[in-house]
Parts: sequence; structure tokens; C-alpha cells
Amino acid sequence: GSVSSAPKLITTHTKMADEVPPPAHQVPAVSISSDGTSSSTVQKARFSDRVRIRSILGRPDGGAGLAGQKVRISGWVKTGREQGKGAFAFLEVNDGSCPANLQVMVDASVSDLTKLVATGTCVTVDGCLKIPPEGKGTKQKVELSVVEVIDVGTVDTATYPIPKTKLTLERLREFPHLRSRTNSISAIARIRHALAIATHTFFDEEGFLYIQTPIITTSDCEGAGEMFQVTTLISHTEKLERDLIENPPPTEADVEAARLIVKARGEAVAQLKSAKASKETITASVAELNEAKASLSRTEERSKLKPGLPKLDGKIDYTQDFFGRQAFLTVSGQLQVETYACGLSDVYTFGPTFRAENSHTSRHLAEFWMVEPELAFADLEDDMNCAEAYVRYMCKWLLEKRYDDMELMAKNFDKGCIDRLKLVASTPFGRLTYTKAIELLEEAVAKGKEFVNPVEWGIDLASEHERYLTEVVFQKPLIVYNYPKGIKAFYMRLNDDGKTVAAMDVLVPKVGELIGGSQREERIDVIMERIEEMGLPVEPYEWYLDLRRYGTAKHSGFGLGFERMVLFATGMDNIRDVIPFPRYPGRADL
Amino acid sequence: GSVSSAPKLITTHTKMADEVPPPAHQVPAVSISSDGTSSSTVQKARFSDRVRIRSILGRPDGGAGLAGQKVRISGWVKTGREQGKGAFAFLEVNDGSCPANLQVMVDASVSDLTKLVATGTCVTVDGCLKIPPEGKGTKQKVELSVVEVIDVGTVDTATYPIPKTKLTLERLREFPHLRSRTNSISAIARIRHALAIATHTFFDEEGFLYIQTPIITTSDCEGAGEMFQVTTLISHTEKLERDLIENPPPTEADVEAARLIVKARGEAVAQLKSAKASKETITASVAELNEAKASLSRTEERSKLKPGLPKLDGKIDYTQDFFGRQAFLTVSGQLQVETYACGLSDVYTFGPTFRAENSHTSRHLAEFWMVEPELAFADLEDDMNCAEAYVRYMCKWLLEKRYDDMELMAKNFDKGCIDRLKLVASTPFGRLTYTKAIELLEEAVAKGKEFVNPVEWGIDLASEHERYLTEVVFQKPLIVYNYPKGIKAFYMRLNDDGKTVAAMDVLVPKVGELIGGSQREERIDVIMERIEEMGLPVEPYEWYLDLRRYGTAKHSGFGLGFERMVLFATGMDNIRDVIPFPRYPGRADL
Repeated sequence: GSVSSAPKLITTHTKMADEVPPPAHQVPAVSISSDGTSSSTVQKARFSDRVRIRSILGRPDGGAGLAGQKVRISGWVKTGREQGKGAFAFLEVNDGSCPANLQVMVDASVSDLTKLVATGTCVTVDGCLKIPPEGKGTKQKVELSVVEVIDVGTVDTATYPIPKTKLTLERLREFPHLRSRTNSISAIARIRHALAIATHTFFDEEGFLYIQTPIITTSDCEGAGEMFQVTTLISHTEKLERDLIENPPPTEADVEAARLIVKARGEAVAQLKSAKASKETITASVAELNEAKASLSRTEERSKLKPGLPKLDGKIDYTQDFFGRQAFLTVSGQLQVETYACGLSDVYTFGPTFRAENSHTSRHLAEFWMVEPELAFADLEDDMNCAEAYVRYMCKWLLEKRYDDMELMAKNFDKGCIDRLKLVASTPFGRLTYTKAIELLEEAVAKGKEFVNPVEWGIDLASEHERYLTEVVFQKPLIVYNYPKGIKAFYMRLNDDGKTVAAMDVLVPKVGELIGGSQREERIDVIMERIEEMGLPVEPYEWYLDLRRYGTAKHSGFGLGFERMVLFATGMDNIRDVIPFPRYPGRADL
Repeated sequence: GSVSSAPKLITTHTKMADEVPPPAHQVPAVSISSDGTSSSTVQKARFSDRVRIRSILGRPDGGAGLAGQKVRISGWVKTGREQGKGAFAFLEVNDGSCPANLQVMVDASVSDLTKLVATGTCVTVDGCLKIPPEGKGTKQKVELSVVEVIDVGTVDTATYPIPKTKLTLERLREFPHLRSRTNSISAIARIRHALAIATHTFFDEEGFLYIQTPIITTSDCEGAGEMFQVTTLISHTEKLERDLIENPPPTEADVEAARLIVKARGEAVAQLKSAKASKETITASVAELNEAKASLSRTEERSKLKPGLPKLDGKIDYTQDFFGRQAFLTVSGQLQVETYACGLSDVYTFGPTFRAENSHTSRHLAEFWMVEPELAFADLEDDMNCAEAYVRYMCKWLLEKRYDDMELMAKNFDKGCIDRLKLVASTPFGRLTYTKAIELLEEAVAKGKEFVNPVEWGIDLASEHERYLTEVVFQKPLIVYNYPKGIKAFYMRLNDDGKTVAAMDVLVPKVGELIGGSQREERIDVIMERIEEMGLPVEPYEWYLDLRRYGTAKHSGFGLGFERMVLFATGMDNIRDVIPFPRYPGRADL
């Protein structure tokens, strides 16, 4: 029974390859039968006795070829209605595996129908798949005729917060624990999943290693003002303050009293010694003295306890915090992942990042996910090639694997979202220097185009400028590169002109900036100069500078805001709707 | 140029399938040529002008078939030595793509050799692959004869912290930014990567959706004592305190003075009015009064400012914190991911989790990663089947894709680690109830086996018990299930015996408990009783209980400590060596 025997391994390998879902939505993303014998056999979910609805409706024939099959399905009732004066009921059941509902027919002789029809009811039923009678105006290729109701999770319609009538997205945010039961939020969840898997698959295929950079960081490089602090000091302080109320600390008089006892006992020992008392007597007296000393020490210690955060020289004493120093939530894994790039070549991090910005816009979150690849032995052009290949890969992946969900998004939210994916998947990105971008914007202004923010060389491009370039001028994704050094970070590689750095931004229609990246400054003397020029302290960066001091390597990288990619793909407007549990000022539900 | 044209998509699809690496280590994990024309053509890295060393040495022929090819490679010198009285140098170069080094030969006529030979030097060189001369006792199937040195990142041997002589793992932890350059840490990073990709691939293939549960949480369910607090209160307090020192707050006298001004100006207005002054004069006087009132209001407001954290009724006023309430770092995504399981069926979360435990052991971290799947319409047996399939899948994946790294681990750290992977991959896990496990332990005790912790029904199994069962009694992975309810969480499903809950732990040799899981209590009345029985407050769980109130579904799940899995796979002893940036009391470097 050894796993290393070749046939076993090859079987597994073949299965893996088979499991890569086939193109587009013409064929189902699950194999039809696990034994490969017949396409009219439906595949059961592997870790349940049910069949996923996607395994039925996701087939090229919409499930028609499965007519006659007995299956068990489970899911939640989207809409239910009794018909034929209560003789039977039709339920539209969804199990989250695909946007489509399975139509389920239950006869009154099989079950109490009133328990089944409320929106939100959970049902597990055994039944027989059959072709619906013609002329009923139904779009369903197959429906389920129920033989037995196995399990029901009922719903009290009067109190259920997610009724059949559509709630606004904003209202749905009040119910983060239930909103995944809606068509829109579940489609977004499946698209988000697909984008995450596409990300890992792309980088794994290209030989990048996934490095999990730290969430808690003591590198407060980017300015502590916008960082969340991670601490146990407050809970310790609260505990201490409760304790001080229950057991008030010793007063100065208490300390003095303890001191007097020590003095008295010291004198007692001295007297006994000069009186040449017995060894036992002296020993006992010394023991009493030591006890008094210990008690004094405890009393003095406790008398120093004060409410409030622990302080040293007027500042908070972080040596008493969990990590022995001030700690924060990371704002980016880039600097840390660079340490692995300078040893393992091609790496990426994909994790949560944080900003304590008091920002209430539809584009900002306090907690969001970033994908940050770092490529060793790669220059800015390699970096742009990687960014473009990655974004196009994700778009193709979605078109292949979640076309049904994209259709739902196009129908309900953004007619253009599928065309946008196709555009990005099929069209090489435009590339132009920052200087050229400014020229184009100045030309537009000369021709009468009005921007809120003035255009001139040296400005940071505003969202209006970026969207004008990508949506109006080029009408496709763009990469703008070689930005003025004054508006970019110290670690970006200085170009030979001495004015610009090897930075690049990927701009896409609908969201504007999707990616920001750069070639990193690998020359120790140049980066030291840049740090000085920007008035930054050197000490916190010593470890980062070590990468340049010892075996420095040309390297480049970029960061993609994952929620921005989900916004771009789905066409949603508010970032709070494309992350399962949005965090922003005043809100961190659950 | 539409992406939806079938040929284009099929091309992509075929590529994806091709990219699934072939079995075991007999064949390379990268395809040999991008155009498929010839296996004697080496494949360049896609986003660089170099060839990865793995593309050369990872071939079945060890690269011999590439002799004669011109390639550019990059990497860091592991060892370098001048030979032939400085006529040439041999460099062992590693680029992180595989554990093996490429032997590189540089002639003194090509480059200054002294700059190249120091350990840690980064080189990019063009050269010609050739079969090494026989009889030199080398194991290399191919070596690189350098034609041109393109780039060098030098190292000052005197100060480089990672010298050629091996440092202990403990000492290496002092250099988290450089330790990825060592054989051991880089092999662990590749194995960790492989396990992460295996995780996503397994769950994606099985139809699970990756749900990114929140890192910042306000559900302090598990007891705030061991949670890190996330806050902006301290930085605001510090800012306020600095401000109060620079601009001391108004005294009571200042407030009184401001009050007097208001009073005086009020009287002035009254006088002007009774004197029937001109409209303009009265308006001006009223304006002065309003200004005085505003100034009083500001003065009063500022006079209330106090140093220290903001308080309300003696407690910290969290309404002034970023999220308007106390917030923490998550200890588990389970409860949140359950909300998505109860709408999307099969989901999982894979993210960082945190414990503020003052624990200095080799098995605990303050920040660690957890994989937590949640299966709707699945009972405890389905849950066990899923856990077993997942763990075995990861073991097979490693044997297929990182056999070379496993060989390195077996050689340097744990001779048995490959056999352990094979055992787990090939052997069905044992399964026994907790009650049976206790019986077996009691039998062992009766026969003279000594445990530190006494054995009786009702105890929580200690690590010594778990390892005895899996390593001595069964000598294979085990699943123990149906634990006494008294030692398990409130959300675990009560069995019909009323004494046990449908919980399960997966125990494996070397690390003991690898996975903990359960079927969740889906019955609202039973879970309410359990909450009461355990003396927990109901209010914080209202959202969780809603899942049972509305369309409740049978569901199950488990959690796998990702670092434990890396420990199990690699055979490493200290958890601080299997995560890139370990966090524990007193340490959060970088």
C-alpha cells in the first residue's frame, strides 16, 4: 500500500487534470459521472448524500439528459407557491452551487406544503428528475418531482429579514450573516472565489511561491497615523484598574508602616545576636525579618501601581505590551515579501491589509485583500508583462468558469461587464510614459475638456485623469510608467534621467487604477540618498537595506487591490458589497 | 479579437491542464520548451530573461540533454572557490526554484573572480551548458561554463550575517530577512507553498468556495482575555496628550472668564435694545454675543479634555474607537464562514488567526494560519471523510511535486518524513469513538504504561494520550469522535445519548492533533439550552442563532492548523521555523 507506486500517482494526476473545468458555459464545470460510465448518471457531492444543483442544471443539456434519474437535492427555497387549490406546490430551490434554481414539484400527499413554500426555507428532498410538461411557459429543461421530503428547516415569514421582495444592497448590509442567500451576493461570492483561485493558479503555474507575510507588523514605515494598533495593553490596564478598585493600592502610610515593621524586626535580630541568643531563636527572628522585608517589597511594588496605560518617562511603556514594542496591522506585505524574493526569486503574497483611514467612500475599506507579487531578476518591463498577463488570465478564467454568474451580473447590475472582461482578455494593454500621459491630458484640456484637478507635469494623476485616459482616449486597459520621483515611494528605482522612477500603474475602465508597481531600487547608495532626500529615518529600514548590502538583485513587483478587481469584474459600485464582511469607520459586524 | 472565440479558450484550457506538474520527481515540473518543438530547448522564465535552475536540473536527465545550450541564469552563490591558482572559479548557484545548486565555472579571463566567490553573492551570468569532465567525482549531470558575467551583487564576507558555516535554526531566527537564503528555510517555504496550493486546489475541485472571513472582529465570543485588541484609541490619546502639553486646556478660571464675557455682551445687547439703538448697531452687538457664546462653548469643550483613554461612566468609551466598539483580531473564522455555508453550501476559509497567549513553546504562535471548511448538508461522517481526503490529498501532492525538497528535509532533519507522507497518503485513517479511545488508554495503563495525566472518561485527551494512540497503538492517522459534551464547544451537535457531542479530532504521528471539527448543532432549542447550560451570554450569538431560526440546515466543518501541517510534513520541531515571520511574546520582527 505505498503511494509511490506509479499507477496510483498517475491516477491522481489524471484526475487533477480532468478536474480543470472546461471552457465557457456550454459544458458543466463538474464531471457528470465519477466512474465515467454514462453521461446520464448524475454525480453526487463527494462529502454529502446530496447532488449539487450545478451538477444537474450546469450540463450542456440543462439537465434534460438526466430525466428519469432519482436524486437527493438540498437547498433554500427562493420562491414557493401552492397551486391547484393546495394540491401541490412549486419550489424554486437554490443551493449556492450556481445562480440557477432547480424547480421542485411537491404533491400535497407527500408533505405538508405550508411548511415548504416560505422564502428561505431549507429543504432536503428525494425525487425524480423529469422533463416539464410542454406549454407551461417554463424555461426549465428539467424539474424534480419529489418522492419524499427528508428534512425541512422552516422560516417564520413574519420575522425573516430577507424576504422575497428585493432589498436594496444597502439594506442587505444590515444582515451580513444572511445576505449570502441572495442571488446577487452569492454570485459575487462565486466570482470572488474564482478570482482568488485564478490568482493562486496563475502564480503557481508561473513558478511563483506563495509567501504568507505577517499581519501584525512592527515596521511602521508608512506612518503610524493610518495604521491600526494591535495591543494587549488596554485589557491589562482595564484588569489592573478593576483590581485597584477591589483592592486599593497601599497608601504612603501603609508603606511607612511596613518599613517600621522591617526596622523593628531588624532591631530584634540585632538584640538577639548581641544577647547571644540560641541559634534557633536567631534563625526564627531572621526568618521573621525576611518575611517583613518581602512584605515591604510587595507593598512598595503595589503602591506604585497607577490606573491608566503604563508609562515610562511620560510616554507609553510598550515594553509591557505583548510584543515588547508598538505593533500594528500591516498596510502592505511588499517590503517583507521582498526579503523572500531576494533568495527564492519569484514570490507573491495574498493577504489582508489594513488602513485606519476615516474614509466613508464606496471605494475604501479598513480591511481589504492585496495580491503582491515580487519578481527577482526582472525589470520594469518584465513587471508590466507580468501584471498584464495576470489580469488577462483572471478575465479569461471568469469567462470560462463563471459565465453564468457573469450573466447574472450583466442582467442585474452592469450590462457591460461581460464585454469588459472580453476586451481585457483579448486586447494587449496600451503602454505610455507618464510624460506622454500628461501631454495627452494637456491636449484634451486645450480642446476644451474640463478636469477638476489641474494638469501639469509633476502632479499625481487623479482618478478623473486615469479614467479619461483608459475610458475615453484609449478605450482599453493602459499601463502608465516612469512617474516623477517626487510623487512616488523611496524604494522605486531612479531612472537615468534623475527625475523619474521606474514605477507603473495599470488603469482599467470602470475602476481606474487597478495595480501599482515598480522596479525596486537595488543600488544601496542610491536608495540611501533617496531615503535622506525624503527625510525618512534610516534605522527602521536597516533590514530592508541589508537586501541591497548583501548580494543585491534587480527586482520588481506590484500590488493589486483584490476588491478593486472584484468591482471591475462584477461591475458593482460599492466595495462593501464585494467583500463578505466589510469593515469601515463605525462598522465591524460579526 | 474576442476572447470568447472557442479556439483561443481551448488553447488556454489546454495550457492549464498541461501545467499540472507530472508525478514524482522523475520528470521536471516545468515543461521543457514553450513551443513543444524539442526537449533539448530550455524554457526561459516568462517574466525575466533568465532560465530557472529548476528548468535545467529538474529534468529527468538532470539537464544533461541540454548540453550545448546557451542560457542566462541568476542566483545566489552558496559556495564559491577559486582554483588553478586563480585561473578559474567554481560557484554553486541557487535561485530558490529548487533545492539543487547549479555548478557554474568562470574563467579568470571572463571576470574578476574575487568578487564572485563569497557566499551570498548574487550573480547573473550567460554561459554554455556542458557535461562536466569525467573523473572529477562530481554528481552534477551538467554545469555552466560562463561566457559573460552580466551582473554582480557583492557581499562583504566580514559583515554578512549568513555565512557559509551553518548557523543553528535558532540563530537564523535573528535574521528573518535573510534566512530564506538557506537550504532549510527555502525548502520549507517551497513545501509550505505546495501545501497552500494543494489546499486551494482540493477545495476548488470539490466545489467549495473560498470565503475570506474577517480578520478584525467584534465577536468576542471566545473570551477577550486571549484576543488581541485592534484600536486607534491609543494613538488618538497620545496625540491628545501631546496637544494638551503644547496647548494646556482652559482652567476653570478661563471658563468663568469666557462666561463673564457672554454675560457682559448679553447685557450690552439688552441695553442697546431697550435704548432702541439702530438696527445695525444691535445686529453688530448680537454678532459679538454669538461669537462670545461660541468661544465659551469651545472653551468648555476643551476644558473637559483629559489625558488618558476616553472614559464614560468609569469605563473606556469605545464609541470613540475606530469601529465604534471594541474590536479584536479573529481567533477563528468558523462562526462567520458558517453564515456562508448556510446559503452557498460548501465553503472554506484560509486565513490568519491570532491568540494573545503568553506561550513560549515550540508549538504556539501569536499569529498562525488556519484552514476551515464548512460543509452544508453533511453530518459528522461526511466531515471525517472530507478531513481524511484533504490530508491525504496534501500528502500525495507533496510527494508528487516537491519530492526533492522532501529529500532535503529527510536528509537534514527527519529521516522518517517521506515514509510518513507515504503512510498517510496510502492508508485509510483509523476511526474510533472517544469512549473506545479511553478504553484503550485504560488498558495500556493496566498493562503498566505510565501517563503524566490520569486517564478516565470525561478528560480532555492530552497530547501524550493522542500520540500514544496514533504512534503506538494504531501506528497510523486516527480520527477520534463523539467526545463528552463537557469538554467541547456549545455549537457542537448533541448526540442522542445526551452525553456526547458529534465532535472529531484527527490525530497524526509526530504532531498529535492536526484537525478538530464537529457537526454543528442545527436545532435552535438544543443550542439555546447548551448556551444556557454553559453559562454563556445569548446576545453576542444572536446572528449565529439566526442561522438556526431561518431555514436551518444540517452542517459540519473542521479546522486545520496550517503550521501544524507544515510541521507534520517537514518533520521540523519548532513552529517558528515553518512560518516566514513568526510572532510570539516579545517578538514581531519586521
